[in-house]
Amino acid sequence: MGGLGVGGGLGFLHRPRSVAVVGASDDPDKIGGRPLRFMREQGFSGTVLPMNPRRETVQGLPAFPSLAALPQVPEVALIGVPGQAAVDAVEECAAMGVRGCVVMAAGFGETGDPDGSAQQERMLAAARAAGMRMIGPNSQGIASFHTGAVLGFSTMFAEVPPADGPAAVISQSGALTSVPYGLLRRAGIGVRYAHATGNDADVTVGELAAEVLADSEIELLLLYLENLADPAGIERAAALALERNVPVVALVGGRSADGARAALSHTGALAAEQRVLDAFLARLGVWRAGDVQELVSAAQLYLQPWPRPEGRRLSVVSNSGAVCVLAADAAADHGLPLAELAPETTAALREVLPRFATTVNPVDITAALLNDSSLFSKVLPILGGDGGADAHLIGLPVSGQGYDVATFVADTAEFARNAGRPLVVTTPQESVAAEFRAAGLVVYDDESLAIAALGRYLRHQELMTQARTWPPRPEPATGPTTGTAPDPAAHATAHATARRAAPDAAARPAALDAEPPARTLNEADALALLARHGVPVIEHRLCHSAEEAVRAYETLDAPVAVKGCTADVTHKSDLGLVALGLRTAGEVHAAATRQFAVMRERGIAADGVLVAPMVEAVREVLVGAHRDPVFGPVVAVGAGGAYVEALPDVRLLLPPFRAEHVRAAIDTLRIAPLLGGVRGEPAADVDAWCAIAVTVGDLMIADTKVVSLDANPTMLRARGSGAVVADAVVMTRER
Amino acid sequence: MGGLGVGGGLGFLHRPRSVAVVGASDDPDKIGGRPLRFMREQGFSGTVLPMNPRRETVQGLPAFPSLAALPQVPEVALIGVPGQAAVDAVEECAAMGVRGCVVMAAGFGETGDPDGSAQQERMLAAARAAGMRMIGPNSQGIASFHTGAVLGFSTMFAEVPPADGPAAVISQSGALTSVPYGLLRRAGIGVRYAHATGNDADVTVGELAAEVLADSEIELLLLYLENLADPAGIERAAALALERNVPVVALVGGRSADGARAALSHTGALAAEQRVLDAFLARLGVWRAGDVQELVSAAQLYLQPWPRPEGRRLSVVSNSGAVCVLAADAAADHGLPLAELAPETTAALREVLPRFATTVNPVDITAALLNDSSLFSKVLPILGGDGGADAHLIGLPVSGQGYDVATFVADTAEFARNAGRPLVVTTPQESVAAEFRAAGLVVYDDESLAIAALGRYLRHQELMTQARTWPPRPEPATGPTTGTAPDPAAHATAHATARRAAPDAAARPAALDAEPPARTLNEADALALLARHGVPVIEHRLCHSAEEAVRAYETLDAPVAVKGCTADVTHKSDLGLVALGLRTAGEVHAAATRQFAVMRERGIAADGVLVAPMVEAVREVLVGAHRDPVFGPVVAVGAGGAYVEALPDVRLLLPPFRAEHVRAAIDTLRIAPLLGGVRGEPAADVDAWCAIAVTVGDLMIADTKVVSLDANPTMLRARGSGAVVADAVVMTRER
Repeated sequence: MGGLGVGGGLGFLHRPRSVAVVGASDDPDKIGGRPLRFMREQGFSGTVLPMNPRRETVQGLPAFPSLAALPQVPEVALIGVPGQAAVDAVEECAAMGVRGCVVMAAGFGETGDPDGSAQQERMLAAARAAGMRMIGPNSQGIASFHTGAVLGFSTMFAEVPPADGPAAVISQSGALTSVPYGLLRRAGIGVRYAHATGNDADVTVGELAAEVLADSEIELLLLYLENLADPAGIERAAALALERNVPVVALVGGRSADGARAALSHTGALAAEQRVLDAFLARLGVWRAGDVQELVSAAQLYLQPWPRPEGRRLSVVSNSGAVCVLAADAAADHGLPLAELAPETTAALREVLPRFATTVNPVDITAALLNDSSLFSKVLPILGGDGGADAHLIGLPVSGQGYDVATFVADTAEFARNAGRPLVVTTPQESVAAEFRAAGLVVYDDESLAIAALGRYLRHQELMTQARTWPPRPEPATGPTTGTAPDPAAHATAHATARRAAPDAAARPAALDAEPPARTLNEADALALLARHGVPVIEHRLCHSAEEAVRAYETLDAPVAVKGCTADVTHKSDLGLVALGLRTAGEVHAAATRQFAVMRERGIAADGVLVAPMVEAVREVLVGAHRDPVFGPVVAVGAGGAYVEALPDVRLLLPPFRAEHVRAAIDTLRIAPLLGGVRGEPAADVDAWCAIAVTVGDLMIADTKVVSLDANPTMLRARGSGAVVADAVVMTRER
Repeated sequence: MGGLGVGGGLGFLHRPRSVAVVGASDDPDKIGGRPLRFMREQGFSGTVLPMNPRRETVQGLPAFPSLAALPQVPEVALIGVPGQAAVDAVEECAAMGVRGCVVMAAGFGETGDPDGSAQQERMLAAARAAGMRMIGPNSQGIASFHTGAVLGFSTMFAEVPPADGPAAVISQSGALTSVPYGLLRRAGIGVRYAHATGNDADVTVGELAAEVLADSEIELLLLYLENLADPAGIERAAALALERNVPVVALVGGRSADGARAALSHTGALAAEQRVLDAFLARLGVWRAGDVQELVSAAQLYLQPWPRPEGRRLSVVSNSGAVCVLAADAAADHGLPLAELAPETTAALREVLPRFATTVNPVDITAALLNDSSLFSKVLPILGGDGGADAHLIGLPVSGQGYDVATFVADTAEFARNAGRPLVVTTPQESVAAEFRAAGLVVYDDESLAIAALGRYLRHQELMTQARTWPPRPEPATGPTTGTAPDPAAHATAHATARRAAPDAAARPAALDAEPPARTLNEADALALLARHGVPVIEHRLCHSAEEAVRAYETLDAPVAVKGCTADVTHKSDLGLVALGLRTAGEVHAAATRQFAVMRERGIAADGVLVAPMVEAVREVLVGAHRDPVFGPVVAVGAGGAYVEALPDVRLLLPPFRAEHVRAAIDTLRIAPLLGGVRGEPAADVDAWCAIAVTVGDLMIADTKVVSLDANPTMLRARGSGAVVADAVVMTRER
């Protein structure tokens, strides 16, 4: 996987001097015929060399019976024959010095069939040996509309006419190249690149993305992924996008357990753990879309010339009170606060609007617009003069016949020019929408769709800003997931805590092949490891007898806790190995004695008992960490306690990170409202929590022997008084 | 509010013999001109009588200078003049014996302006006195397309041609009548009624809905509401809909605090408490849509002839693996489990599909469909023969040119006929969609939209089935909300527990005008009240001295709790008035002494201290209740504990209800996964919890003096061992 690095010389695929089509068809609607037709229609200026042993000409071009018979070595070969013939063609191309090939046939690595996988490996080996680059196999092909180099067969290019423009789509799926292409084009957006990479055997989505991003005219990149065969490639491309300020939106199929299973059938690659993937993409500033609509629906917003918005405060004006109401509801759903208009603004609106209009935000100019088309031109400049809003929505659920739409459009366009802020218009009427679009304005069918898109757009801007603040990762993620990742179903549930890592790790024979088994440290060793790295841990004594426990108790502030110290049990309280709040020597002696007995009876390795003072905490939380097989170290912060797995409330971050990143993650936890103090309780020391998480992130990078770590509970004292880890489970592996 | 009851004689509005138009305009695009034009275009066969003092004819019809000059008393008058002229016209109509009028002018009760409200009251009084019914004011009008009686001015009827059909839209907003009308029509669905009721001063949405539902050809009713001026009317209409098996989908604007504020500006009515409204609608079997798309997007599913589906298991077949993956993700999002295909089905699919196809659900027939159009006709009958699925999705992200779409359509239609189950087709290509639609099939743009709609449709079927099982309410809800409901912002947060009722009640001067203040019972009285109604409460002793507390302790099983008993404090633990786990007489004496001192020092009414045994519980939950000013008694079930308000996890139900309804609500709580037992804990006695909730519901109906009630914590023992209320706060009001 991987390849030649950023923009590493794949440019020839976008503007090949010559293209051979192996398996060329005279039928312009067959897989082998479509590329010839598309290149002709799109004005491709390079040489096209159809290969077909049964015809003299193909679609009017002279045909050649074999690769050997070609009058020149083509720069690129497009391989439209199936199975073994495709393998033979790739080998022949590699041997003759072809620079790159696109293999359209399916039935190889994605099938899980050993024969298909072996054939794919042969193609890859031949290409690699000769320095030839390969797209696919199982690729619908790649298309570059500024040069007309359509090296693919997508039906959608025939259904929805291409037009060059600032958008690019790169996808591992043919259908999910075609559908976003079609939706963008239907929205009037020009698409320069529509690439389907298929199995990513050689050239991956990430590498191709870097090449596309080297094109300075690309302003928006949409990705569809089903496997993260090349996370490092995605990471490099995303960094380039951020540098160029190009937004990247990614739809990753297989979010659900069933979806992950279907993806396994489809591309043969196992799914990444979803919440780790979320953390990975967020860190890169890549917006993750939930479905195809979310992938494309904000595209027109990204391509507007307005400056980067400073906030998310929305103003709404409509000729319908109901749209005002529904827009306010949608704004709340999508995290856009309604802008508060200045008193002068409201006063000025009151001057020009009918008595029964609403002059606060949302502004309802009422159905009076039907009989007074000038209301728009009066209202918009007033709103434009108010600095309170970061974005505007103009809702016209009813207009058209009887309305002076031309004036509305002119007034709105004028307002948009002056405002220099995001502005969307909503109308369910296609004819009205067309007039606004013709004036360069962004139009949605209704307020809910518009505000959802606007919300994604504005939050993505913030994500990109935040992404620039993350410290760089010491080394990019390493793949591949194919065949070596854990069972996605096992990962679909909580990776909340490192505790989970134990059973998971046991279920990963492929990943662990050459590795020694991981071992669990006892609590004393786990706390010692954390302390060595600078994590504040609870004061404690490891005692090897009940008498020693009593002596330890006498040196500590009562009450104390006594806990069995063993590497064999993680949920110690379930076995009665945790005694809390002990206030007398007698209680300590009894508890220690009981715990030694339990460990003995159950045959558990007894490393002693720990005696520790009870910690007063405002809030019990957790800091966890594990190593993801795809993305490397991952740190979790979340609610602590006994139900971390049954009722997870955690957020993941990829280290290294700073306290501000932890804080942003913590602010989205369900328990966030408690942290500031409720019902007279003091605020918790979240800064101390953030500091521990940062330290744990650094620890995971520095100490590669640590497989997983679970500091639960981490006790937060009142703000300013710090935090301390009261219990920890750590798994390590010698390498 | 309210009116003549179910189908109470509003039918004449749908087929008036004669219609006078007051303020008729010769311009067919003005408010006063549109109705004349629409009635002409729609073939209205009654008499149309334009009134215009300045013209001899209006749009070719003879015009009359005044109502008095009309040659006959019109059955219906459509009033298109503004302000005082509208009031005069209503009064004149009432006096001359007009049966019903539609008032289109705005600027009345919705403005909050006293003059406008007074004018509205005058219109209403005149109508009521004469027995004339009135739609509006502030109504865009009502339209009946089977008779052509278009008594309104919606631009959308000019933009999107009407066609009679099985759907009806009734809305308090003109725009939100027009937009759903337009979306339904664009989806090819016939709309018989498109009614905008405006301010609902006389005829309400509920009453008009009952009339519409009396039309046996109506199969789907969509509502848009901003205020619940007439909840009893909605209740009656919903009951009728359920009886007739007509699905009702309602969009209620003002979900958010800002939306509620905007609704207040728009219709002058205060918002209902949202979660109570949810419970109200769910009880009625009415599906609540989140936005306009959700209001209409499942409409085509509701209007199909297939029998009521028995479950939600989905099968998916596509020529794209990515669509299979994304469909599985969307199915998980929307609660549709993927059907498991029988081994014979998979085996049969393997026979007919290419080697690299996927033969489990989702079934990926692969891009091979392009070169083999017969795959469809081979696969669909095999899937149809498998009984595992309740609904089918056929995903065609790519087809059109080069594909034999006609065969796909014929095969799919055949499959749909044979399957007799919900079936949706997805294609982003409008031309392909049109071919499927022409064959009577349901088509969506993509799998995500299709599955979202299918999920809503299937869950609504379940909701309707469940709604039939609820015991009837002793009396329907009573309104009105207008002017008497509490501040919506105060209600936007937790009504989780009745505890909230205290500050809320204090903030409700309007609602409490004529009522004595509510008073809080002390805990002993509260527990006694619950016990009288059959709720199991904790064993306890009310003691008036520390010595008496010690004596009580001696009769109970240690450990015990001691709590200050006072009506003055609800969060007793915040003041140190709760001592738990006391094991000695000395501890009890000290705690009681301390609590008496605290109450004395703080000037809190001290009714004694309660001594009660500590209850061992598997889980602490809550049962709460209060009286909603709109919907009456409401019962809450949810997670108990100290953070009920900061981290609410509750569901509301309107009594009376049965244990099964409580159980269904509890199953949706965040804590639901804990109730079956986790980490070795026993399962909790949820049946006992349900029984308490049912009893509390009955109590709220039987004892109207109880304003609110909060049984928190309610202690659930292990399954089969019952539950007991350990603390309660009850507020009562003498009437």
